[in-house]
Amino acid sequence: MITVTEAEKIIKNHVRVFPKEYIDLSESLNHILSENITAERDYPPFNRVAMDGICINFSDFAKGQRLFKISGLQAAGSPPLKLSEINTGLEIMTGAMLSQGADTVIPYEQIEKIGDSFKINNEKLHNGANIHLKGKDTKSDSILIKAYTKIESHIIAILATEGIHKVPVLKMPKIAIVSTGDELVPIDTKPKDYQIRTSNSLMLKAALKKLNIKSSTFHINDNKELLKSKMSDIIKDFDVIMLSGGVSKGKLDYIPEILTELNVKKDFHRIAQRPGKPFWFGHKDDKLVFAFPGNPASSLVCYKRYFEYWLMLCLRQEPNNFRVKLKNSYVFKPQLTYFAQAKLIDNTNERIVEIMPGNGSGDIANFAQIDGFIELPSQSEIHDCNNMYTFYKI
Amino acid sequence: MITVTEAEKIIKNHVRVFPKEYIDLSESLNHILSENITAERDYPPFNRVAMDGICINFSDFAKGQRLFKISGLQAAGSPPLKLSEINTGLEIMTGAMLSQGADTVIPYEQIEKIGDSFKINNEKLHNGANIHLKGKDTKSDSILIKAYTKIESHIIAILATEGIHKVPVLKMPKIAIVSTGDELVPIDTKPKDYQIRTSNSLMLKAALKKLNIKSSTFHINDNKELLKSKMSDIIKDFDVIMLSGGVSKGKLDYIPEILTELNVKKDFHRIAQRPGKPFWFGHKDDKLVFAFPGNPASSLVCYKRYFEYWLMLCLRQEPNNFRVKLKNSYVFKPQLTYFAQAKLIDNTNERIVEIMPGNGSGDIANFAQIDGFIELPSQSEIHDCNNMYTFYKI
Repeated sequence: MITVTEAEKIIKNHVRVFPKEYIDLSESLNHILSENITAERDYPPFNRVAMDGICINFSDFAKGQRLFKISGLQAAGSPPLKLSEINTGLEIMTGAMLSQGADTVIPYEQIEKIGDSFKINNEKLHNGANIHLKGKDTKSDSILIKAYTKIESHIIAILATEGIHKVPVLKMPKIAIVSTGDELVPIDTKPKDYQIRTSNSLMLKAALKKLNIKSSTFHINDNKELLKSKMSDIIKDFDVIMLSGGVSKGKLDYIPEILTELNVKKDFHRIAQRPGKPFWFGHKDDKLVFAFPGNPASSLVCYKRYFEYWLMLCLRQEPNNFRVKLKNSYVFKPQLTYFAQAKLIDNTNERIVEIMPGNGSGDIANFAQIDGFIELPSQSEIHDCNNMYTFYKI
Repeated sequence: MITVTEAEKIIKNHVRVFPKEYIDLSESLNHILSENITAERDYPPFNRVAMDGICINFSDFAKGQRLFKISGLQAAGSPPLKLSEINTGLEIMTGAMLSQGADTVIPYEQIEKIGDSFKINNEKLHNGANIHLKGKDTKSDSILIKAYTKIESHIIAILATEGIHKVPVLKMPKIAIVSTGDELVPIDTKPKDYQIRTSNSLMLKAALKKLNIKSSTFHINDNKELLKSKMSDIIKDFDVIMLSGGVSKGKLDYIPEILTELNVKKDFHRIAQRPGKPFWFGHKDDKLVFAFPGNPASSLVCYKRYFEYWLMLCLRQEPNNFRVKLKNSYVFKPQLTYFAQAKLIDNTNERIVEIMPGNGSGDIANFAQIDGFIELPSQSEIHDCNNMYTFYKI
């Protein structure tokens, strides 16, 4: 049995560089950019008018002129007009390209209309006012968005502005989720007294979906030959295999034995933690096998703590956790790292959680009340409400 | 011009009760449950074995018996066996229904095999050990998951266990996103010098997608008759209309005028804030119109601060913000609430942001560097790094 820290180190040795793929901009939310995006042109791409009003040549104003005859309207999205004569102005709209011959914009708030002219009421006007100059924000060919940026909605705005309708992103691994256990029946079936419906594979599929990873689910019954032959195919077809169930000490817990027979090298089996102690982790060439215990809480703890830890490293993203305080100090005596089910009772100011121990990892009624798991290290039996602990939000 | 707080109050008056709809369990992630889910049966549904080992009748142990002959194997998912004779045991697996006649489970760690029998090495054994009793966690017909719970992966596990393959959720509003502005060209087009590609509608669509809301996008040029006729149709077909652009003081900013002509009642126009001052909000019967200014940062600030504020109230969810500290104190002189672009520089322990002012709301290079907006109230010019402020993460 190894510690949580040792397990983490072993998993860190299996970090991969994911390949690149191109996906539609409309599908790119939450994906990770695989390369720098450089500016196609200067930003702003032209001398961009920043206020609705009039534009003039400042030299006229400097000579004392205040009343400007207006010779036309320069709209956004139209080719730039030209100041037709000296001493005149043009009405001009936000977002327009500055008219030729003009260098200064005066907003409607600072002018008044007199006949077909406008009088300027701002004696503090300066040359170049209210113009967002071409290239002020960034120059063409400079880096606009860095590789490994997570694509949120505002990044989509920039990619759209750049015309990147096929976005280079990190290709997510192809993942199989395999549940085992003869007690499991499909969700649209009425279970017999001694059966339960399958739930882990749907839970893990949803957790992956939240990270933009599509996965395939399988269920295999507790028959050793069948398990071995199906697992052999699944290992060939997927990059990462997540199992749930079959890794404990039961007579029908064939998974560790079968994986060894299929030449999946065991990196570790059993971690000094609760829940999730029987977690088995191994690899075959570049493929990884995360074999989680069968209780939903055990599976989810191991998924969050180990699989997502690995994934965030591969994607070069921030860890999937944050630091919290406990509402009340908590005593846990076994010499195990305890991933306590907990509810975030304040997530707005200081982050505080309340432990909801329930009746162990099989207690689904308790499972409905929680927001995640707090990691209480094994070094101490008393976990003090003045300390900070790591929290994994579901 | 009204304040941010006044705008919030007006929007709060438009909170709706969303109707219910049934969706597939596999599509339900991030949706909001519309009703309580009650337990179909007791949990655990049977006396559930919690460890791999053997089961016996405790009265034999109490009488001094330590060696138990094993008469069979009770697997999970099989109908319960019966202790065949007094003084015998059965091997039994985690997740199995407890065998008839047995009341106590002894794990493999506490027994040793001697021939076809097992010897118990735990003198502290108690009656009922290692059994998760039927109904201990919850009784049938009691509430398992409360209405208005957000469906995360662990909730999917519970819904699956309950066999709820069609999930009752709040039906999200039907939303149209309408961009205006003649300077905008489609993203697969090469813009002329004075044009830019459309970006706001794709950004808002992605922001809604993150909340599980599908939306339809439209672009309408700055032609008053065309705008009026298209907007008339869109208002008929959608629950919420988000506009971007056309609400400022420009000659071609027709939106407020057209909405009034289409009998959309103006609730407010212009808020004392930067960016997003020209934001226009109104309603027609039960339909709401959020008309955002055209700069991406202005649109996104108003979307997060006002639309998501409204939506979270309708869904009865926690607000879409949290409290942060500033890395450095910051001075902002205009008498406006300032939604400063900011980067989360610590999101693991105390949440701290750094303001990235850039060159105003049109600066897309700066936009790529940020994680959200910090709300700096107008009451003070100096925003102190020891105070806490509200942060809206994108």
